[in-house]
Amino acid sequence: MSEPFRVGLLGHGTVGAAFATLLEERADAVEAETGQRPELSGILTRSRGEFEDILERSDLIVELMGGIDPTRDFVLRALERGRHVVTANKQLLSQHGEEIFDAARRGGVQLRFEGAVAGVVPAIRVMAESLAAAHIERVHGIVNGTTNYILTQMTATGATYEEALAEAQEMGYAEADPTEDVTGKDAAAKMAILARLAFNAAVHLDQVGYEGIERITPDDIGYAKDLGLSLKLVGSAQRIDGGVAVHVYPAFLYADHPLASVNGAFNAVTVESPAITEITLSGPGAGGMQTASAVLGDVVSAMIPPPSLPAPAVEQPIVTDVEFSFYLHLEVADRPGVLAQVAEILGMQCVSIRSVVQKGLGREARLVMVMHPVLESKFRAAVELIARLDFVREAPRVIRVIEETF
Amino acid sequence: MSEPFRVGLLGHGTVGAAFATLLEERADAVEAETGQRPELSGILTRSRGEFEDILERSDLIVELMGGIDPTRDFVLRALERGRHVVTANKQLLSQHGEEIFDAARRGGVQLRFEGAVAGVVPAIRVMAESLAAAHIERVHGIVNGTTNYILTQMTATGATYEEALAEAQEMGYAEADPTEDVTGKDAAAKMAILARLAFNAAVHLDQVGYEGIERITPDDIGYAKDLGLSLKLVGSAQRIDGGVAVHVYPAFLYADHPLASVNGAFNAVTVESPAITEITLSGPGAGGMQTASAVLGDVVSAMIPPPSLPAPAVEQPIVTDVEFSFYLHLEVADRPGVLAQVAEILGMQCVSIRSVVQKGLGREARLVMVMHPVLESKFRAAVELIARLDFVREAPRVIRVIEETF
Repeated sequence: MSEPFRVGLLGHGTVGAAFATLLEERADAVEAETGQRPELSGILTRSRGEFEDILERSDLIVELMGGIDPTRDFVLRALERGRHVVTANKQLLSQHGEEIFDAARRGGVQLRFEGAVAGVVPAIRVMAESLAAAHIERVHGIVNGTTNYILTQMTATGATYEEALAEAQEMGYAEADPTEDVTGKDAAAKMAILARLAFNAAVHLDQVGYEGIERITPDDIGYAKDLGLSLKLVGSAQRIDGGVAVHVYPAFLYADHPLASVNGAFNAVTVESPAITEITLSGPGAGGMQTASAVLGDVVSAMIPPPSLPAPAVEQPIVTDVEFSFYLHLEVADRPGVLAQVAEILGMQCVSIRSVVQKGLGREARLVMVMHPVLESKFRAAVELIARLDFVREAPRVIRVIEETF
Repeated sequence: MSEPFRVGLLGHGTVGAAFATLLEERADAVEAETGQRPELSGILTRSRGEFEDILERSDLIVELMGGIDPTRDFVLRALERGRHVVTANKQLLSQHGEEIFDAARRGGVQLRFEGAVAGVVPAIRVMAESLAAAHIERVHGIVNGTTNYILTQMTATGATYEEALAEAQEMGYAEADPTEDVTGKDAAAKMAILARLAFNAAVHLDQVGYEGIERITPDDIGYAKDLGLSLKLVGSAQRIDGGVAVHVYPAFLYADHPLASVNGAFNAVTVESPAITEITLSGPGAGGMQTASAVLGDVVSAMIPPPSLPAPAVEQPIVTDVEFSFYLHLEVADRPGVLAQVAEILGMQCVSIRSVVQKGLGREARLVMVMHPVLESKFRAAVELIARLDFVREAPRVIRVIEETF
C-alpha cells in the first residue's frame, strides 16, 4: 500500500464539511490518479483541534475558515514550514496576496486557489496554465452568483431590486446580510485575484473601483430589453497604456457578448488575448459542494508537483480613468431645445452620441441615449453639467455598455 | 543564460507556420515562466528536413503534419526515444490513441493535445486536470466550427443548407471539400478523444455514431425558432448502464441549455458531473493562430514536468441504443383519424408524446411532435411503421431534442 497523503483541514462550515465528505468519497479515484491515497489528518474548528498539531501531521493544508485573522497567520506558517496550501479565501488573497505568494515561493510549495473565484468555473487554472504563454489583454467576469440571480429575476419578472433580493434570500442565493454581494465588494476581491494572474500585476482589493446593483430599477432593465441588451454586474480587468484597470459595475451587454446569456446564479469569465481572441468559461456559482469540488481538484494537482505559482508581480500603474460606452437616462421637461442643450454639453466634453430615444410622458419626457466610448472623467463632467440644467427633473441615471469586440 | 529547450516541428502548413511565428514572439515570456528559452531545432516538411536528424536535436516534438501515415510512426518513435510530444492530430488520437498513450507512458514523457479538440477552448486540460477528481457523467460539445457557422447562418437568414455552405466556403469557414465537417466525422473524432478523457474508456472513431447536417432544411430551423429551440450539431458522450455512449447528431436545444447560445464559428463543451453540476467552456473554433496558441500552451506545460497522461483505459462497453427526446415532422393528408393512428403506433412502442402542433396546408397537413425521452430503437421502429401509412406523404423527418438538466 502507498503512503497516505495527509490533508489538514482548517474550517468545517458548509464548504469544509462538503470537502471532508468529498475527499472520502473520491479517495479511491484520487489514489488511482496520483498513486497516493489522500486522508484527513485533522480538522481545526473554533472548538476543536490545535493548529500546530494538525500542521505537524499534514502534507497539505486546506484552508476553508475564511477571513483574515487568524487565517493569514496559519497560511503563512504552513507555507513557511513547507506545506502545500489550498485555499478558497478571496479576502485573504485580494488583500495579502503578494505576501502569501512570496511565502509559497520561498517554501518551494504549491499554493492553489481555484475555489476562491467563480465557483466551479476553472478560471484560475486556465489563466495560469492554458494561457501561460498568451498575452492577456482583458478579462470580463460575472463572478457573483447572488447579484446575477437578482438581475436575472428582475429581467424575467419585472420585480424591483428589493423584491428580487427577498426572493434570492428565500431561495438561499443571497445571505441574510447581502452587503458584500450586492455592493460589488465580493466581485471586486475576485477581480483583483483574476487581474493578478492575467497581468502579473499586484492588485489590492483597495485598488478595485466597484459599484453594486442596489440602485438598479425595473425601468433600467426595461430599456435594456427594448434595446436588446442584458444588464449584468460585470467585473472588468484590462491593460491600458502600460497600466492595469480593474473595476466592477452594472453594465448593459449586447446580445452577442458571451456573458449576455449567463443567467441565474451562474458565474462566467471571458478572457481576451490577441492569439486566442477569447475564451469563455461558465458554470454554477459557488455552492458548498461546487467549491469543495474545486478545492479537491486543487488538492489533486498539488499532489502532483511542481508548484504552479504566479510569477512575481511586476510593478504596473493602476489606471482608474477608463473609456466606456455609457447609457444615459434623463427625465426632462418636454419642451423645445432640451435635446439640443444636452447634446451641446456632451459635445463640449467630446462625448459623441450613438443613439437616442425620446419618449413623451405628458408634460415630461424621457431621454435615453447611448454614447460612443469616451473617457469616464469626461462623461461624468458632462453629466454633472447636465444635472444642473433647469429642465432636468431627476438625477441622471448612468450605466455602462459593453460590446462584443470580435 | 539557461539551456535552450529544443522544439522540433513536423509540418509547416497554416498551423505549423503560425506556431513557428508565435514561438518566436513569445519566447521571452515562456523563458520568464519556465526558466528555459524555447527554440526551434528543426522543421520537417514534405520537401525539407529529415525526421531522425530533427528528433536527435529536440527535447520535444510538435506534430502538425496531420494524417496517420507517416505521422503515427514519427510520433511513436519520438515517444519511445523519450521526447515529449504535442500534437493537434485528432485523426491519429481517435484511431490510435491507446497505442500512443502507452508509448508516452513507457517513455515517461508528456503527450499533450489541447489543439486537437475545440480550437482555443481548453477542454482537454480542464477535463484532465481540474476535473481529475470529479466523476464525469456526460459531455456535450459543439466541436465543429464549420457546421455551427452554417447552422447559425441558416437560422439568421433562412438560407438553405447549400446557400449557407457556399457562403461559409467564401468566408473561409468551410473547405472546398467540406465532407469531413458536414458529415459529422470531424466532430466524431473529437468526441472520441473527449470521451476517452472523460470516462477512461478506449473509444475508437469507428465506435462513434455520427450524422451530419446535409439534410437539414430551412423548415426544420423555422420550427425550431417557433418552439424556442436552436438547432446545433451536437456531440454527446455519456455513461449509460456501466457503458459509454458517444454520438454526433443535429439536435434541437432548449434556450436555457448552455450550448444554445453558441453561435457562428464558435466551439463549446459542457461537462456534467454530480459534484460540479456543469461547466461550459467556449471560444472560437480552430483558426491557424488559435490552434497554434493551444499548441504553445501545451509546449509550456510540457516544459514543466510531470507528465499528465490519461490513466490506462478501463474496459467499458460501448452503448449504441440511447434514450433521447425526439422531434418528428410528418407531411400527411389532411383527413380525420390521422393523428389518432400516428399516436396509436407511437403508443405501441411506448413512445409518449410531449407536444403536438398540426398545421393545415390545403389538402395536406403538417404534424410536428416532440416526444418524451425514449430509447432510440423503439422510436425508430415506430417511425418505420408510421412511414408506411398511406396518408404519409414524405419520409418522416426526425431530429433529437436536448434539454438543460439543471
